[in-house]
Amino acid sequence: MTNVADFKWSKDMKLNKFTSSLGKIGFQSTEIMNASNTIVKMKTEGAKIFLSFTSNMVTSGLRGFFAQLIDLKIANIIITTVGGIEEDIMKAKGEDFPIGSFFSDDKALYERGHNRVGNLIIKNESYEKFEDMIDPMLEKLYAKKKRYTVSELLYELGLQLNDKNSILYQASKHNVPIFCPAITDGAFGFHLYSFSLKHKDFIVDVVGDFSRLLSASSYDEKKGLIALGGGVSKHHAILGTLINGGLDYAIYMTTANYTSGSMSGATTQEAKSWGKIKDDADAVTVIGDVSVFFPLAMCGALEELSERGVIEIKK
Amino acid sequence: MTNVADFKWSKDMKLNKFTSSLGKIGFQSTEIMNASNTIVKMKTEGAKIFLSFTSNMVTSGLRGFFAQLIDLKIANIIITTVGGIEEDIMKAKGEDFPIGSFFSDDKALYERGHNRVGNLIIKNESYEKFEDMIDPMLEKLYAKKKRYTVSELLYELGLQLNDKNSILYQASKHNVPIFCPAITDGAFGFHLYSFSLKHKDFIVDVVGDFSRLLSASSYDEKKGLIALGGGVSKHHAILGTLINGGLDYAIYMTTANYTSGSMSGATTQEAKSWGKIKDDADAVTVIGDVSVFFPLAMCGALEELSERGVIEIKK
Amino acid sequence: MTNVADFKWSKDMKLNKFTSSLGKIGFQSTEIMNASNTIVKMKTEGAKIFLSFTSNMVTSGLRGFFAQLIDLKIANIIITTVGGIEEDIMKAKGEDFPIGSFFSDDKALYERGHNRVGNLIIKNESYEKFEDMIDPMLEKLYAKKKRYTVSELLYELGLQLNDKNSILYQASKHNVPIFCPAITDGAFGFHLYSFSLKHKDFIVDVVGDFSRLLSASSYDEKKGLIALGGGVSKHHAILGTLINGGLDYAIYMTTANYTSGSMSGATTQEAKSWGKIKDDADAVTVIGDVSVFFPLAMCGALEELSERGVIEIKK
Amino acid sequence: MTNVADFKWSKDMKLNKFTSSLGKIGFQSTEIMNASNTIVKMKTEGAKIFLSFTSNMVTSGLRGFFAQLIDLKIANIIITTVGGIEEDIMKAKGEDFPIGSFFSDDKALYERGHNRVGNLIIKNESYEKFEDMIDPMLEKLYAKKKRYTVSELLYELGLQLNDKNSILYQASKHNVPIFCPAITDGAFGFHLYSFSLKHKDFIVDVVGDFSRLLSASSYDEKKGLIALGGGVSKHHAILGTLINGGLDYAIYMTTANYTSGSMSGATTQEAKSWGKIKDDADAVTVIGDVSVFFPLAMCGALEELSERGVIEIKK
Repeated sequence: MTNVADFKWSKDMKLNKFTSSLGKIGFQSTEIMNASNTIVKMKTEGAKIFLSFTSNMVTSGLRGFFAQLIDLKIANIIITTVGGIEEDIMKAKGEDFPIGSFFSDDKALYERGHNRVGNLIIKNESYEKFEDMIDPMLEKLYAKKKRYTVSELLYELGLQLNDKNSILYQASKHNVPIFCPAITDGAFGFHLYSFSLKHKDFIVDVVGDFSRLLSASSYDEKKGLIALGGGVSKHHAILGTLINGGLDYAIYMTTANYTSGSMSGATTQEAKSWGKIKDDADAVTVIGDVSVFFPLAMCGALEELSERGVIEIKK
Repeated sequence: MTNVADFKWSKDMKLNKFTSSLGKIGFQSTEIMNASNTIVKMKTEGAKIFLSFTSNMVTSGLRGFFAQLIDLKIANIIITTVGGIEEDIMKAKGEDFPIGSFFSDDKALYERGHNRVGNLIIKNESYEKFEDMIDPMLEKLYAKKKRYTVSELLYELGLQLNDKNSILYQASKHNVPIFCPAITDGAFGFHLYSFSLKHKDFIVDVVGDFSRLLSASSYDEKKGLIALGGGVSKHHAILGTLINGGLDYAIYMTTANYTSGSMSGATTQEAKSWGKIKDDADAVTVIGDVSVFFPLAMCGALEELSERGVIEIKK
Repeated sequence: MTNVADFKWSKDMKLNKFTSSLGKIGFQSTEIMNASNTIVKMKTEGAKIFLSFTSNMVTSGLRGFFAQLIDLKIANIIITTVGGIEEDIMKAKGEDFPIGSFFSDDKALYERGHNRVGNLIIKNESYEKFEDMIDPMLEKLYAKKKRYTVSELLYELGLQLNDKNSILYQASKHNVPIFCPAITDGAFGFHLYSFSLKHKDFIVDVVGDFSRLLSASSYDEKKGLIALGGGVSKHHAILGTLINGGLDYAIYMTTANYTSGSMSGATTQEAKSWGKIKDDADAVTVIGDVSVFFPLAMCGALEELSERGVIEIKK
Repeated sequence: MTNVADFKWSKDMKLNKFTSSLGKIGFQSTEIMNASNTIVKMKTEGAKIFLSFTSNMVTSGLRGFFAQLIDLKIANIIITTVGGIEEDIMKAKGEDFPIGSFFSDDKALYERGHNRVGNLIIKNESYEKFEDMIDPMLEKLYAKKKRYTVSELLYELGLQLNDKNSILYQASKHNVPIFCPAITDGAFGFHLYSFSLKHKDFIVDVVGDFSRLLSASSYDEKKGLIALGGGVSKHHAILGTLINGGLDYAIYMTTANYTSGSMSGATTQEAKSWGKIKDDADAVTVIGDVSVFFPLAMCGALEELSERGVIEIKK
């Protein structure tokens, strides 16, 4: 049994020393370490790793980190919501997202065309540029064929980008599928609709992606999930692995509470009643803000994985 | 300015006396009253009312209440997630959902085929019965035509049900559209996929529903939203009204916090920076468990609306 | 096993019908019913009932309800924090507390002398009146004797009030002890300090109250706790019963989460590891805003208790 | 205006690089950076710094960090609750606190004499050893004089310890007062009570500490507060500075929500309505688990302060 150890700061501390000290503080610090160790284990033992996240995390600076994780072959399957797709493309095309405040004068922001997402801002002009660029991108893929599943469509969009920090770019480069079941739930949905008015034979086939989700992992291989936040991205990742026998490793990281019976707040314990997570799986529920907790847990894991030679760092 | 008033119990209290006393307690009690008054106002002033909710609320006993609200012409447009569709159909076909405990032995539940959703249970056999019944239902509508938007498909399913407490039944009866942008994110997604393997020309058109969402309300008419919980259902309802000029009345009721910048925790204040909610709109953010807070706020409103003769009660 | 039942509104609903319907909705609704039933049980089986609450609840309209519960002999021992003592006295002397908004211009409030507590206001003039009245009240009790335990001191203050809605008034009338371990943590602390400068032999004996806390319940009698909110009031109530063998019935009602290991978020499960709550006790953790949840749970219990003739209602 | 920057991991990352990258991610990451910068500012500008924390943080490994902060002259005044005092002494005497799980079999823990605090354990034998050692410690100080304010009493206890990681030891060494208004709210309260039965003239003077709290800072000097968690420790620190004109710098770090009007969840905004925090103060509300967030914010600040030569590091 491990005991609590007094945390002490020392000058010029290395991050991995910090994260390993965290593990002995207790409360959520310890859960972050448990998550970190589980990530190391799922990667080392060759699991197929699903990474799900919500759109607001792409609004944030985690976006480049997700792209890096695809490049490092940590994330093998991505599941997200459409806002994240839109913002990844905006950023790939050079749009900046200002940092503001949670306590703003929202009417003043409205007049400046500044749309608030917590303490971040998406400018109206970023949406306008997105609108301008998406139509020609869709035309290119329409020229190839008329019917796309969502993951095929996102693959084609990623091929048209050129930004190492882009999730779509890295996913297309590494053939990592991106699933986005509610593809119409955002500005992109509107643009798809407008596009389809001009091209009546253009079909976005959501049902077809179900087949690809099922074949993204198999019953026999080990499966791991890192679910950041809740909602449809978390649920869809779980669904995709449940049908193939359930998860061998799972990290649920969220601020949502179990008390309302929501998917967002559902714990790894609850998941075992469904067989979503196997009985003997390594499973950790971490409760806290992903913008802080995920970099900590993941950087701790990356240091360890690079030390073991499991991941390869490019110059 | 209203002052705090000491709450006192009296024997045989009527619900409307209770709810009006709540308003003068303070904290979330007062916000429940603000929500209640806003519902009365949006209905009285003839707004088109969007009601969004997450699947777990259909797992709960709120399901029959949602059906009642459609029947009472309070809810004019429904937005939800696919789990709720599945469970509404299961219940319409007579399946029971046991009440359990948040703190169960989840491995024991698994062995009994009891899937836990907070403190509620969905039995494996309910999923099996759903599987058995859904295929013939889809065959019936395939016989009519081959391409359906999601809301058309749900309309057809509702026509095949016969349960006054069913959301789909009441929605079809009253021509209330049900939008469900992530239609494949559940067991129903798997069944649609299996069905489409047998019927290659069967198309579920998600993009097509965008048109119907836009025309569900107009720029000129007043628009109100009651968003219960967060995620894609909340976001989609907002999206549908944003394009038509934003909301005149809004109630966001959720347990999610604003602190992580998520859609689930986004406040009515934040919404004003986007124009999702108009500057001068009646907008209330209520933080608490919907299973308790919504019946309170809504029953308070229904009493008032029936007193004013705005809603008609059937015998 | 109970099943979920569809909730339906009906005109002129009685509160007890409403609360019993809540129990079959699920999630926190069901926990409110569990709490209600546990209150009925602890009272019916003759337990000594501890009621603990935080100061903000006395700022709210729950204050008169707490006074009523003392009068109805539901609450036998009170534990709270000093802000609640101050505000109970202010209200007993006629001060009003306005209802404001969670999202105020706090600098403007400051300039108006309006101190915000969530969406409630305490006016500077209420503090000034408290300052004016407390000194003569202390003089009266100093004339009797020079050394008081905190509960004795509060008893004497209650005797000087004349307001049926006052917690102190009802407690003194019914000989219900009020424990307040951090008596100096508020404006009252400052006034006690000023008073003691003038009266060097005036002693507030906190240690002496420990004896009274221990004898407020005995090892052999059944003990119940209704802990509203967290912090020192919750902890002190538990401490007082732990030493006498632990609780037979417990309701923890709070918005605090278990995830940080705090007393405020500590669950009734955790309490069993300490023996704070007995193995086989009726124990319920309810997560939600007390301003809403407590009136619901308690009014449900009061209806039932009055029906069974366990409590007597005065005209 | 700062923009969001893509976070990227690099091998052998230094902690200060990590923390400065966090600042550009958004959401609570950014607030951690704001907190860190505010700590640097309050220290650099010579403010008197109040540090308040709850007992569970002393259960955790933050205890040694708090001791270090006293030693580094970052924390000038300490306010806490009595459980933290008890556990600091236990640890100073060599007791270990095992790390367990949030989801334990609490009845089994009870039988083993393991008391759970979140995912940490305090053993019965640690309480027994505390009981054995505290009486002789009290005898020593009783031999000196008969009447102690709480902070004097804690000063004397600290002198009897010999552990660099002890909060009491460092506080006594550096003449940093520790305020603990609810001194009887724990096992120590029971021991004080037992001691006072043997020594009728022994007086713990809580009112007397009010004078020392007031003189711990002055109206003219700059005052800063780092409030970790909520409850009486947070409130007492605020009270102590409010009377001296309010805070110039404030960090509130907690998991509690503003929605219930509790002191624990009270924001730095709300504090401005009271004058608890000055209009133009640097004030940050950070929402998250202190066991993770505080080491991050504080280590970032310590690196910067040591680089600027403001703090001196001992070998």
